[in-house]
Amino acid sequence: MKVVVVGGGFGGLLTVRGLRNADVDVTLVDRQNFFLFQPLVYQVATGSLSSVEIALPLRQILKRQRNARVVLGEATAFDLDAQRVVVDDLPNGEGQVELPYDVLVVAGGSRYSYFGHDEWAPNAPELKSLQGALDLRDRILLAFEAAEAERDDAAREAWLTFVIVGAGPTGVEMAGQIAELARSLRREYRAVDTSTARVLLVEATEHVLGAFPGPLPHKAERQLRSLGVTPLLSSTVVGVEAESVEVEDRSGTRTRIAARTAVWAAGVTASPLARALADATGAETDRAGRLLVAPDLTVAGRTNVFALGDMVSVEGQRLHGVAPVAMQQGRHAARMIASGAREPFHYRDKGELATIGRSRAVGVVRGIELSGFLAWALWLGIHIVYLIGFQNRLLVLTRWIFSYLTRGRGARLIHRERTRSAG
Amino acid sequence: MKVVVVGGGFGGLLTVRGLRNADVDVTLVDRQNFFLFQPLVYQVATGSLSSVEIALPLRQILKRQRNARVVLGEATAFDLDAQRVVVDDLPNGEGQVELPYDVLVVAGGSRYSYFGHDEWAPNAPELKSLQGALDLRDRILLAFEAAEAERDDAAREAWLTFVIVGAGPTGVEMAGQIAELARSLRREYRAVDTSTARVLLVEATEHVLGAFPGPLPHKAERQLRSLGVTPLLSSTVVGVEAESVEVEDRSGTRTRIAARTAVWAAGVTASPLARALADATGAETDRAGRLLVAPDLTVAGRTNVFALGDMVSVEGQRLHGVAPVAMQQGRHAARMIASGAREPFHYRDKGELATIGRSRAVGVVRGIELSGFLAWALWLGIHIVYLIGFQNRLLVLTRWIFSYLTRGRGARLIHRERTRSAG
Repeated sequence: MKVVVVGGGFGGLLTVRGLRNADVDVTLVDRQNFFLFQPLVYQVATGSLSSVEIALPLRQILKRQRNARVVLGEATAFDLDAQRVVVDDLPNGEGQVELPYDVLVVAGGSRYSYFGHDEWAPNAPELKSLQGALDLRDRILLAFEAAEAERDDAAREAWLTFVIVGAGPTGVEMAGQIAELARSLRREYRAVDTSTARVLLVEATEHVLGAFPGPLPHKAERQLRSLGVTPLLSSTVVGVEAESVEVEDRSGTRTRIAARTAVWAAGVTASPLARALADATGAETDRAGRLLVAPDLTVAGRTNVFALGDMVSVEGQRLHGVAPVAMQQGRHAARMIASGAREPFHYRDKGELATIGRSRAVGVVRGIELSGFLAWALWLGIHIVYLIGFQNRLLVLTRWIFSYLTRGRGARLIHRERTRSAG
Repeated sequence: MKVVVVGGGFGGLLTVRGLRNADVDVTLVDRQNFFLFQPLVYQVATGSLSSVEIALPLRQILKRQRNARVVLGEATAFDLDAQRVVVDDLPNGEGQVELPYDVLVVAGGSRYSYFGHDEWAPNAPELKSLQGALDLRDRILLAFEAAEAERDDAAREAWLTFVIVGAGPTGVEMAGQIAELARSLRREYRAVDTSTARVLLVEATEHVLGAFPGPLPHKAERQLRSLGVTPLLSSTVVGVEAESVEVEDRSGTRTRIAARTAVWAAGVTASPLARALADATGAETDRAGRLLVAPDLTVAGRTNVFALGDMVSVEGQRLHGVAPVAMQQGRHAARMIASGAREPFHYRDKGELATIGRSRAVGVVRGIELSGFLAWALWLGIHIVYLIGFQNRLLVLTRWIFSYLTRGRGARLIHRERTRSAG
């Protein structure tokens, strides 16, 4: 039996791994040659981790799984009648291939959307892909360099102002990290005091981490403020330019913030593969572009087509777009494919944690609300355990121990080819 | 006293560090925000090391040296009468600054030249800068991916053919690493046997590592062949295109090698700063563009202008363009600046080592010729000891131990935004 899995994130990879002892041939299709440990991407953007520590080549992960192969390329269309996936953008630059399947699993993930304002993207890179994080790292580090070189006070202040859009876990973590980075760099600059940097966290709702229960959003807000982050709640972004971000509060008042660096972590939308699969099957999508799938993760009554992870909404279930959901769905899909049975997916919610900075975090674990050092230690432990691959795990641990002891940041290299204009 | 040091490589950085207890103000100017451990750059190109392991932010290195500051920008001109250095391309994108000095030290390093054929560069990236190494890493990894996707035998063979130009230490090390990489990736691909890859090392002279004494070039050649590398000696490159490299042997016969990946490691030429300083002082340059300096490293009789490292030729001395020379010259310059004396530089030659692959190396240490495992172990130890910064040293050691034990390569991420054409 031929199984084609599209997408090498948490959901897709766990599907493939779950089939390692099954009597099937699995083909994993991804545009990138690596699996990305997405929950830590923001740490790359601030130089705490380097890309190799949160990304591992798919071929390396699947090296010993002899029933699996990897195809590097972009799945662009599904022919469900002929049971084929069209894969484009092959690495040899020639044409496309059609991969035949008996069972198809699509796990394309999600991305941030700019609320219909794609023109904001160049000035506010998204913090979900590795490319976005590396781009942001260059910008953030160059902003401190520019502040050091700048003689005009107002211009310097704009270089030292960072606006993060969206106060979900990623935005909160990023805001805390930038504040910590600014403080830890203080002694490296001579003309400027980087610890005077302003970090503004813009959020449309009334709370940071609004999805967390009870007092946790308030606690998170207090922890953010103690780090020097200023939350701008009940505020929406109405404009992003190279040198400013415009924000509108609930009363309709607009404020233009002079800021040279903006980070986008809002407006989650499903992968375009959700749309492609909806078009091919007649399934519906929701407002966030997510494909509606049956409780057993099948699509539009086809028992050999599964979709899972951030790009789907499971009928009758309200699930967050987090890694544990995708992982459990991937394992569930693999079990169903191996056994031939079709059973509803049930999410076992072990909790959720969001870190805010060094020794600061909030979360719920098995129903218990936690905050502060304990939550942070738990967050650290869980993320290290889940980082796939022994090599990476030890290296991340080593780097983090150093980072914690020395308050240093190793991965602070500006790779960008610098040109005469900064921007 | 104001000291301006241009260039944050081995020579410039050691000058700055050597002045840490002197009663001077030091300004270090560099285009990049990091010091690069250049002798290991080739390991980034094959994914054995990631960039953070061989690069360290200059500000981090000089954080505690309170008499030193870093200016990120490109030194473009020297006004020796007004005693000023013009620095352009500042990170805030505005204008330029002129840095006044009492003493000037210029250490701009060297680069590879394409023998007047700069049009070859896009198809054969140089292996000296971090940018070049990252570019090559993407190309090499994509070449294996393309071979996996390719159905045409001849085309597949071209994807699996790697041509390295120049058999100095960098070229030899790179050839060995690619051969090892191809072998170690064998089990990760399903459609292609990567260990059938051809690695060709083109060298204009009769020997690989021709600068090494006695039987070492022969031993190095034998070790290369045992790894599967084919040296093409007494051969010069006469053309580089996207899909082929043309080579001419001593008899004038030209051969076109179908190869999709070429690496440039030949034709060392001095930094353009040598030319700029020659124009400003009237000093001479040699055929490789190196500035001729007095035995005390001063330029054209000016006792407050020093030049050192790969970009100079010291009057009456024949020195290789290697890190230990630049380091000793940097320390020497710092001592002279602190004391006010001007004394001739003498190189203490402790030897030279070139690694060829896992457990393979050749070299001369304190006059003794070494090859094989002992030379390799010594090479490894020396490079780790010299890697600046405790954090990096331990991480590199950790990664290398893993790499040795597992024969795995961690840093194999393709960062390049892939487009429809391969190239």
